[in-house]
Amino acid sequence: MSGPPPAIDGATRLFAIIGDPVAQVRSPQVFNPILAAAGLNAVLVPCHVLPDRFEASVRGLMALGNLDGIVVTVPYKVRALAVADRVLPVGRQVGAVNALRREPDGTWSADMFDGRGLTRGLREQAIPVEGARAMVIGSGGAGSAVAVALAEAGAAALTLFDVDGTKAEALAARVREAYPSCAVRVGAPEVQGHDMLVNATPIGMAPGDGLPADLGTLPPGLLVVDVVMKPEVTPLMRHARACGCRVIGGRTMLEGQAEELADFLGMRVPGSGRGGAP
Amino acid sequence: MSGPPPAIDGATRLFAIIGDPVAQVRSPQVFNPILAAAGLNAVLVPCHVLPDRFEASVRGLMALGNLDGIVVTVPYKVRALAVADRVLPVGRQVGAVNALRREPDGTWSADMFDGRGLTRGLREQAIPVEGARAMVIGSGGAGSAVAVALAEAGAAALTLFDVDGTKAEALAARVREAYPSCAVRVGAPEVQGHDMLVNATPIGMAPGDGLPADLGTLPPGLLVVDVVMKPEVTPLMRHARACGCRVIGGRTMLEGQAEELADFLGMRVPGSGRGGAP
Repeated sequence: MSGPPPAIDGATRLFAIIGDPVAQVRSPQVFNPILAAAGLNAVLVPCHVLPDRFEASVRGLMALGNLDGIVVTVPYKVRALAVADRVLPVGRQVGAVNALRREPDGTWSADMFDGRGLTRGLREQAIPVEGARAMVIGSGGAGSAVAVALAEAGAAALTLFDVDGTKAEALAARVREAYPSCAVRVGAPEVQGHDMLVNATPIGMAPGDGLPADLGTLPPGLLVVDVVMKPEVTPLMRHARACGCRVIGGRTMLEGQAEELADFLGMRVPGSGRGGAP
Repeated sequence: MSGPPPAIDGATRLFAIIGDPVAQVRSPQVFNPILAAAGLNAVLVPCHVLPDRFEASVRGLMALGNLDGIVVTVPYKVRALAVADRVLPVGRQVGAVNALRREPDGTWSADMFDGRGLTRGLREQAIPVEGARAMVIGSGGAGSAVAVALAEAGAAALTLFDVDGTKAEALAARVREAYPSCAVRVGAPEVQGHDMLVNATPIGMAPGDGLPADLGTLPPGLLVVDVVMKPEVTPLMRHARACGCRVIGGRTMLEGQAEELADFLGMRVPGSGRGGAP
């Protein structure tokens, strides 16, 4: 992604990406071209929030009259719940948020788009989620976001697996409560009977990593999704391709998430920097 | 001033200009080209600090790990004293500051450069301040900064005038105490015996304004300085030119101040964003 860098003047409105560390984030390169393309006099800047200064830093940013939204990254997606005046349903269901925005009344709403980035990405590639039966490996932050987003998008059934069975059970209970029409169960990482397999663990990032579970040969009709961003092709993706499966990598989720965040933060509507699109 | 707009990434360091309002400030256009020319990955952004959120906003900014300095404008130059760990001598003497910087040890120092912008500007135009006898009209914020800066730069004598005589007396006492070798007195706005006349009041900004005092004909050897920025030529400047005086307008002070602030905030030394030049 690229585009003209922003020209900043006194009337420029601000968005922040907060994290610790923050030097590695790509949000400025992703969102500043979106803001520029929309003709908004606004810029997104990295803000290095230190763990012992989280409250002061974030509340200080939120107090600025010209700061309209905050993108939240590691390790603050759970802590950010506490500074919002209102956590929207998916954020509550996941138990973490990755964006905060100022509403027209001055209050702050928070929501989670990590998983909805994936469902948006799948939708844009015309891959059906509604009615799908998905196996999700990993019930941590990414797995929670993915499971909730799949259920929200109308998945018919979810099987959750985590090496920590209690995490999987807890996530299953949360998703079941929020989406009663989705059949959620905890089970072994066996893909028979599923349309979709999602790796929502970090396994595949480290050089020596293998597969996130002992999956055996995968049926060629299975869609295999890996949320890992780096490397671009993980061992799971390589294995799935060898089995003839359609494969979706972390980039699809990342790009879908950028779209979701830009909408939530009102980055595409001139004059609506404050509050913005739904 | 102009220059390439900044490219922002996760490693970009931040400077802020705080004020209320802030939309009118020119600091982003002034300092971002300086940062770019120095090859620093840093950007100055406007931060609209609301009066009832001053403490939270400014302490929140100061808590960010990648924010290295703050430029302070109206109405916060006095309030900013309270958030600094250390107020440098000129800031203490003026009783107000217009810049805060993070030192290498993490503490924050504050200082005032409004008046030193003028003395730097004069120095760069080879106009001597050392040994000069100056008449300063106005003992408010601008007048205090100008009087202290002239004394700091070695002026031999200062005559201070303000319509509120107690303000002029208080300023005279402060300057006298800090610079015992400068002969400071409060007196009528009569320019005889002076090398320099400085208007440090806002008179000249409004359309119907006349002169800041009943000055009569000015001797052609007198240097006349007006701190008013807009209009570029004030009634005082027009009158002084008609009298054959050399005239210095607000732009000289503004440009000198930008130089002083850039030095103080370490904006010219690659790798020294944190702390920076003396």
